[in-house]
Amino acid sequence: MVAINCDMGEAFSIYHCGDDEGLMPLITLANVACGFHASDPRVMRRTVALAQEHGVRVGAHPSLPDREGFGRREMKLERDELTAAVIYQVGALSGFLRERGMQLSHIKPHGSLYGMAARDEQVAEAIADAADVFGVPLMGMSGTAHERVWGARGFIAEYYADLDYRPDGSLIITRVHEAFDPAESARGAVRAVTEGVTAAVDGTEIPVRADCVCVHSDTPNAVEVAKAVNEALQPYLSAP
Amino acid sequence: MVAINCDMGEAFSIYHCGDDEGLMPLITLANVACGFHASDPRVMRRTVALAQEHGVRVGAHPSLPDREGFGRREMKLERDELTAAVIYQVGALSGFLRERGMQLSHIKPHGSLYGMAARDEQVAEAIADAADVFGVPLMGMSGTAHERVWGARGFIAEYYADLDYRPDGSLIITRVHEAFDPAESARGAVRAVTEGVTAAVDGTEIPVRADCVCVHSDTPNAVEVAKAVNEALQPYLSAP
Amino acid sequence: MVAINCDMGEAFSIYHCGDDEGLMPLITLANVACGFHASDPRVMRRTVALAQEHGVRVGAHPSLPDREGFGRREMKLERDELTAAVIYQVGALSGFLRERGMQLSHIKPHGSLYGMAARDEQVAEAIADAADVFGVPLMGMSGTAHERVWGARGFIAEYYADLDYRPDGSLIITRVHEAFDPAESARGAVRAVTEGVTAAVDGTEIPVRADCVCVHSDTPNAVEVAKAVNEALQPYLSAP
Amino acid sequence: MVAINCDMGEAFSIYHCGDDEGLMPLITLANVACGFHASDPRVMRRTVALAQEHGVRVGAHPSLPDREGFGRREMKLERDELTAAVIYQVGALSGFLRERGMQLSHIKPHGSLYGMAARDEQVAEAIADAADVFGVPLMGMSGTAHERVWGARGFIAEYYADLDYRPDGSLIITRVHEAFDPAESARGAVRAVTEGVTAAVDGTEIPVRADCVCVHSDTPNAVEVAKAVNEALQPYLSAP
Repeated sequence: MVAINCDMGEAFSIYHCGDDEGLMPLITLANVACGFHASDPRVMRRTVALAQEHGVRVGAHPSLPDREGFGRREMKLERDELTAAVIYQVGALSGFLRERGMQLSHIKPHGSLYGMAARDEQVAEAIADAADVFGVPLMGMSGTAHERVWGARGFIAEYYADLDYRPDGSLIITRVHEAFDPAESARGAVRAVTEGVTAAVDGTEIPVRADCVCVHSDTPNAVEVAKAVNEALQPYLSAP
Repeated sequence: MVAINCDMGEAFSIYHCGDDEGLMPLITLANVACGFHASDPRVMRRTVALAQEHGVRVGAHPSLPDREGFGRREMKLERDELTAAVIYQVGALSGFLRERGMQLSHIKPHGSLYGMAARDEQVAEAIADAADVFGVPLMGMSGTAHERVWGARGFIAEYYADLDYRPDGSLIITRVHEAFDPAESARGAVRAVTEGVTAAVDGTEIPVRADCVCVHSDTPNAVEVAKAVNEALQPYLSAP
Repeated sequence: MVAINCDMGEAFSIYHCGDDEGLMPLITLANVACGFHASDPRVMRRTVALAQEHGVRVGAHPSLPDREGFGRREMKLERDELTAAVIYQVGALSGFLRERGMQLSHIKPHGSLYGMAARDEQVAEAIADAADVFGVPLMGMSGTAHERVWGARGFIAEYYADLDYRPDGSLIITRVHEAFDPAESARGAVRAVTEGVTAAVDGTEIPVRADCVCVHSDTPNAVEVAKAVNEALQPYLSAP
Repeated sequence: MVAINCDMGEAFSIYHCGDDEGLMPLITLANVACGFHASDPRVMRRTVALAQEHGVRVGAHPSLPDREGFGRREMKLERDELTAAVIYQVGALSGFLRERGMQLSHIKPHGSLYGMAARDEQVAEAIADAADVFGVPLMGMSGTAHERVWGARGFIAEYYADLDYRPDGSLIITRVHEAFDPAESARGAVRAVTEGVTAAVDGTEIPVRADCVCVHSDTPNAVEVAKAVNEALQPYLSAP
């Protein structure tokens, strides 16, 4: 049984970001931005309401404190500083969940925090300390410090349906996501889920663990990709 | 039975604000800043730990989003925007309470938000909507929109031991708090608690409801004032 | 001789706002956001470069310090605090102009700051004190405190080609701008420029001074409106 | 001929930082914070006025965009992003200088930006690009990328009178500065200025170029240190 997750609620102020209304019906887990890289209290409240409307479970999507860089600039925080920053954000989101009688599902770090935690076990530990407060699993990539540190505490491994993998299993990430072929996304997702492998950009087959499949809201054709992935994964989807 | 409350955790970054270590042993309720006018995640976490150490109950001290103005500049927010801002802040603080197994005690708005809610029932309603999410009482001033709007839902009326009252019952508030005579603070607190009256700056006796007594951490002689008030109120203090 | 001005450079972080590339060739004065309600240093630098490329003169578009509210929430600042905030923003923009060998053309306050300055002479004075530092004229609306306070120091009165006027001469402003008929915009602009009158929403003819004509970049059909206004005003346009 | 420089204007909102009034009469160059790690427009304006009053020349003290971390957390910015951030800050400060008819003296990066530029020539280049806009020299440490990159364009090498040096010439920097013996500071400053050497923490003599001597405002006994350094350097001080 597998889930489809997507980063949601990354609008801010008057600015739009992603077609949350179009995507929410196609996913089962929403990673909701918490105000440090994107979103604001009103956007968070609206996003939680939208998730509930579609029966989508909500996880927190905390970031480094970097609104101007959309959480995509690496920052060196001390370990306790990082743990506190994540507790703050997840707590804030929990307020909106409490209003709707919803439970927090998981935590998936955003952007550079995600990448740093994949490479640096100290960072992964700092985030895990925050997750322990809320008693929820962490979402990340197999084969990285995510799995090594979070594996023992309830770890959700995700496969990226709309990003390219390098032969070493790492992701090719750009500041702005590019369009991705929906059919290819769907095929890749099914293969990752059923066979536990994916093809890197150079064709190399690499192992990948896919407890859930991630699609992005800021890919230009995000809804088409999500639709294709959602349809292809129907036989494997767990109820939200 | 009465409580002594104080705004706590208003440091930020490398900046200090108030002698929290000196004050915490002298109060029974801490109104902890939530990062919008003061504080940051690390300061919040440390402040909650300090409160627990001294058996002090913790309430949230949310603000308008105005760090540069320390929450002392009036801002016009739409009603739902304000409710969301308060849920966000109280939720964030709740994360740190959860880490320590502590319960949220109450909500007391900060600075201009407090003042706006005293004058404008719409603002008071917006805050009450947020308090409902957490099921805690609101702290404010009797004889204002605080009492009119919050009175029915669990309202904690506070008397200010270190501020002057105008004959109309309103407070004289300055950007920077000035020193206050500790003995006078103590006498005023006992009178407010036992007789329900206080003397305005011009000597007029005015009615005041004192479910709790507030002292400020940024008064220059804050610890002396708190010590005097704490000693004088010993016969009337409820266990924290 | 008349000019066409437009607020420019209101993107932020990864967020887009308005078709600056499409609009810049159609205007003669750009009011460039300074980082308090929108924009960031990189967006400002890019916007100044774009203006230079199209021979468009650059003015500053300073705001209240309110990124989350896009500068559309009223805030009460002390007079010297407001002057300092405007000097800061205009100075920052001037750095990017200096890099390109360009001169600052004017200052037009943004959003709520613009509205507050139209109603409150103290606010208008605070902004004028900042403009004096840079020796440039202020842009605003005739018949308001803008004209009363700024009239004596080099005042550029603007007519809004894509907003409705109330019979009292005030503007109907919404958080999100709505589409406006390009032909109507063009007709209104020509009439304002040549006759000094415009029709309010109820048909009332009201006097209006139009030293320049403003179009917005966040109107849904902004480029069409600007194109129509630009074509209609060709006989009256001063060289940028 | 030598100068004494000090970081100034690092207060923020209601928060104090350093005894600027006590220090300003003892220095000849003020590195004024620009609002990214500390300060706000009002503090900047007041600091520039204070410098003018004491005949102190003003340089800019720009930072990474990290108010919460006081600019002491490393952040990875793209090169053009960093140049733009520095132009923005220096431009903003220049507005306040313009108001007083003063000229910008130099640029000295703050905190982690300073440290990153000492180690990474790309960072130093990005800052130099911004300094070119304003035509002023950069201040930094000899024997680092500061000198290698900035040396050719007007470089002011500084000796730190209140910090310890490692044998390799690097500084021992802590989040909070510790008290330093004033007499030792003075002796070290004179030696650095007259002999071009200083003693590292382990006693090793290391070469150091001292075009100017830096004292910090957030050292607990900052005024005493500055007084001792100022007196000892009297024979070598250039007029501000």
